[in-house]
Amino acid sequence: MSKDLPLLATAPVVRRDAARNREALLQAAAELIEACGVDDLTTEAVAARAGVGKGTVFRRFGSREGLMAALLNHREEEWQASVISGPPPLGPGAPPMERLLAFGTSRLRHHREQAALIEAAGSTWGENYAVLGFVSLHVRTLLSQLGVRGDLAYLATALVAPLGVPVLRQQIEHGGMSEEQVVAGWTDLARRVVRGAD
Amino acid sequence: MSKDLPLLATAPVVRRDAARNREALLQAAAELIEACGVDDLTTEAVAARAGVGKGTVFRRFGSREGLMAALLNHREEEWQASVISGPPPLGPGAPPMERLLAFGTSRLRHHREQAALIEAAGSTWGENYAVLGFVSLHVRTLLSQLGVRGDLAYLATALVAPLGVPVLRQQIEHGGMSEEQVVAGWTDLARRVVRGAD
Repeated sequence: MSKDLPLLATAPVVRRDAARNREALLQAAAELIEACGVDDLTTEAVAARAGVGKGTVFRRFGSREGLMAALLNHREEEWQASVISGPPPLGPGAPPMERLLAFGTSRLRHHREQAALIEAAGSTWGENYAVLGFVSLHVRTLLSQLGVRGDLAYLATALVAPLGVPVLRQQIEHGGMSEEQVVAGWTDLARRVVRGAD
Repeated sequence: MSKDLPLLATAPVVRRDAARNREALLQAAAELIEACGVDDLTTEAVAARAGVGKGTVFRRFGSREGLMAALLNHREEEWQASVISGPPPLGPGAPPMERLLAFGTSRLRHHREQAALIEAAGSTWGENYAVLGFVSLHVRTLLSQLGVRGDLAYLATALVAPLGVPVLRQQIEHGGMSEEQVVAGWTDLARRVVRGAD
């Protein structure tokens, strides 16, 4: 039986190396994107900066798109953490209307920052229903705390919809709106929804 | 010079044949989709039904995706024509609030019907900014006629956003809403936007 011991001992080491490489690659990709943008990012450059072989990128993430999707997931988790337990008004502790408006601004800026990454991740990211579910539930909870009446599940998805990357692209890049105009427009939209129809 | 006459004469014939083939292929594709859905549609079957060779599909539309995009364009033009000059309340002649609510219901049903086609057209269709521009301008005009104050350009895009195919998919296929619930939800949203925030 002693022959088997090394095998039992190596598996965790391999997993630890894999996790370390994964972190190093995500870190390297984030730094390169910060410096040069998403479009010029190559898997070779990411691997070189992380001090691993190019094959490791594909073993850990499957493809360049997979690496982009993992980076997006990482940033999405950070953003969600700031909603769940970050400082107010995005995080808990502020009145619900302040939290709702902080949500809109923050989500819009998050999407603007991640837009190139979302496009680079392509269908690997796609419509991320788990993310949309979290975001819609957050808005729905705030609408409920605000005493809004009506179909809160629908109204939440309708408030989240104009914060999506394609709509922001239409408004800002094709429609010539400024980011400030879009923030102000969404704030007005949210107030109209909260105020009610009757 | 008489040698040249046939050349001058053939060009229109070729164009007429091309246009006829194009119409026949669009018609055949529409009929096959009606009968069997988009997923099972092959370019071979479309060509056979239209009585042309498979190569003609690629000469006229470039690819299967191109054929789907052309069919979408065709249906989009029909839908836009019904807004511009069709019967009220979607077309002109009804009060602006009735037209706005008819627009929401009609656009939502149009997108539900075209969803499979939009996915099959893929990046050939993509975000069609010309279409989004028409739809947003229509809503903006109605909001103006209703005397709504505020950033009408923004509010129009925000009302159009929840009618997009990915949002409808999230609401209906992932969120378990019925189409009736989504129609009622959008109607309520439109009333809240028109009513205003102050």
